[in-house]
Amino acid sequence: MSVKRQKARGQGRVRRSVPVDLGERSYDVEIGFDWLETIGRRIATRIASDRIALITVPSVARRYAPMLTRGLQSKGARVTRIVVPDGDATKNLSQLGKLYDRFLELGFDRQSAIVTLGGGVVGDLGGFAAATFLRGIPFVQVPTTVLAMVDASIGGKTGVNLPQGKNLVGAFHQPCGVFLDTATLESLPRRQRSAGLAELIKAAAIWDLDLFEQLESRIEDFLDLDRAFVLSTLERACAIKAEVVARDEREGGLRRLLNFGHTLAHAIEAHARYRGILHGEAVAIGMVFAAQRSEAMGFAPAGTCDRLTALIERAELPTRIPDRPRRAYLTAIRVDKKKEGGKIHFVVSKGIGSAGTTLIDPSELIPKGWRAES
Amino acid sequence: MSVKRQKARGQGRVRRSVPVDLGERSYDVEIGFDWLETIGRRIATRIASDRIALITVPSVARRYAPMLTRGLQSKGARVTRIVVPDGDATKNLSQLGKLYDRFLELGFDRQSAIVTLGGGVVGDLGGFAAATFLRGIPFVQVPTTVLAMVDASIGGKTGVNLPQGKNLVGAFHQPCGVFLDTATLESLPRRQRSAGLAELIKAAAIWDLDLFEQLESRIEDFLDLDRAFVLSTLERACAIKAEVVARDEREGGLRRLLNFGHTLAHAIEAHARYRGILHGEAVAIGMVFAAQRSEAMGFAPAGTCDRLTALIERAELPTRIPDRPRRAYLTAIRVDKKKEGGKIHFVVSKGIGSAGTTLIDPSELIPKGWRAES
Repeated sequence: MSVKRQKARGQGRVRRSVPVDLGERSYDVEIGFDWLETIGRRIATRIASDRIALITVPSVARRYAPMLTRGLQSKGARVTRIVVPDGDATKNLSQLGKLYDRFLELGFDRQSAIVTLGGGVVGDLGGFAAATFLRGIPFVQVPTTVLAMVDASIGGKTGVNLPQGKNLVGAFHQPCGVFLDTATLESLPRRQRSAGLAELIKAAAIWDLDLFEQLESRIEDFLDLDRAFVLSTLERACAIKAEVVARDEREGGLRRLLNFGHTLAHAIEAHARYRGILHGEAVAIGMVFAAQRSEAMGFAPAGTCDRLTALIERAELPTRIPDRPRRAYLTAIRVDKKKEGGKIHFVVSKGIGSAGTTLIDPSELIPKGWRAES
Repeated sequence: MSVKRQKARGQGRVRRSVPVDLGERSYDVEIGFDWLETIGRRIATRIASDRIALITVPSVARRYAPMLTRGLQSKGARVTRIVVPDGDATKNLSQLGKLYDRFLELGFDRQSAIVTLGGGVVGDLGGFAAATFLRGIPFVQVPTTVLAMVDASIGGKTGVNLPQGKNLVGAFHQPCGVFLDTATLESLPRRQRSAGLAELIKAAAIWDLDLFEQLESRIEDFLDLDRAFVLSTLERACAIKAEVVARDEREGGLRRLLNFGHTLAHAIEAHARYRGILHGEAVAIGMVFAAQRSEAMGFAPAGTCDRLTALIERAELPTRIPDRPRRAYLTAIRVDKKKEGGKIHFVVSKGIGSAGTTLIDPSELIPKGWRAES
């Protein structure tokens, strides 16, 4: 083991904890570096289950499952690794049925638990399986992507896609804990890091001018995984998500702000059939669109879109809206689940660090004559 | 319209309301006679949705859906009838997927609502669809069987079966209201009324000696649908269920008592592949078994089983445990979802009107040498 690695271990002791305050469903997001085995031990102590399914994806399984498993086994639990294919196409009813079958083969009962290790896909799929198997069993999230760390793993949204659209089926089911090991980001492809940064930028853009300015000062350091910068910005982004969720667990109002950029993003993803474009990339484009429309509708001051676009570009993310006919976007937006009597709750920027929603007809949101390139 | 019918309408004004006290998820069970259109109007007022799916089964749809629909449309909502096949085999993941597809075709959003009209099958299936579509939309139960009236429709348990067992997948999702029209019982086959009586007897057996004695005094009047007797006993049974659920919404302890008779019942049903035997019939047999074992284990005084068996027989329900090998029962019991570390929470009688649970290994519950006929 190199000196550098030892030093890393030493520094790994810097840990942060962000509370998610949801009454009897409260839990913490615990953040550290290179501490997967410790995470496993903590989970084993917390859930006290004798059977644990560790749901993960191939790339992550090889590298990180053994360490986490060692920790999970520390209290004598039988840990079974269930590897599902990577990618958003995995989040479907058929995979869900396969998970139920595995749980039954393993003799799972209500004290058995699920731990998800990976990105948003395993978190959402495994979380929904946990929410519905035997009407709900405990689960813990160990996200290994930036996107899952700052967004998907916190707040209890679980679910699967239908062929007609993303996340059309699901449940609110809070995890018993969320554990982040920022060392796992080192094996994450740079493109995936960028994609995750989109949600981090989103959190700053809707809620926290200070975080936005920090990102403006040195966003490249995040992509290069500067340890202290990653830790502090992740902590802040988790705290924003936790605060919003604590104030609106079931998405009655405030939580909608987290959908900034997501209306168009979902339409773009649906068109791509969830292939070829990462969620964060679609969100990046969606934020540019949202900022553009916010300025046009008078919600955001001039320059907001340019400033946001500049940061998104530095995060190595796309900003150009795919050139498709207006009606293609309208069709996709109309199946979005945030509809209310034909209108949608569209999240508008009110300037960097602030956001709101407006109830709008999709055909007004994308007015006649609108062109993707505009 | 005959005089008798008019008189019935007059008498139909006797209505009862049983509160289910669950904090912000509270609702009432409202009971009346021949008031489906009024029920529809009340639901329309309460949920204020512009799109409603009325999920029902063929036999019920023909007779009762038009009246209910008329009421549901009273505030201008578009009501779509979705008819699913009758029988427990309908409660599966494939039917669930079809419901999601219909909701999307109908352009449902989070303000759309589901009304279930029928027995436990449509209530559980429709309720689970409501619990998970777009992560939860409002729903209302209009049970038309005795079983669904006193048991399935109250308490928010929703779900579907897997090939491996009953109700293995589901969610807790409270309805916005439960409406009982006891006139709908008139078209219910006598065998189904008997089956429903099993859950009514169960409620009395675990909780309420007085109700048990009322049933002993004239249970035949229930089968013959004496209007006042049906109303008062249903009201009491709903109140018992509401009280238990209010004190233990997520089945942490007390609510388990409602599973009296259900351990063996689920095993019997699984073996029959949910065909040929009604749930209430299986529960009837399961209660005889539970009382028998409760006496043998010293929880219930001698004579408890005989007294319970006598009432069950008068309800025209089976009491004889199907003659299958011990290991067949053990295998089925071991996949039951109430397991905890290999043991099950078995509900024991502590004498008529009182019950408790014991954590027991299935192989002790059905000891070696046990014979179904014993």
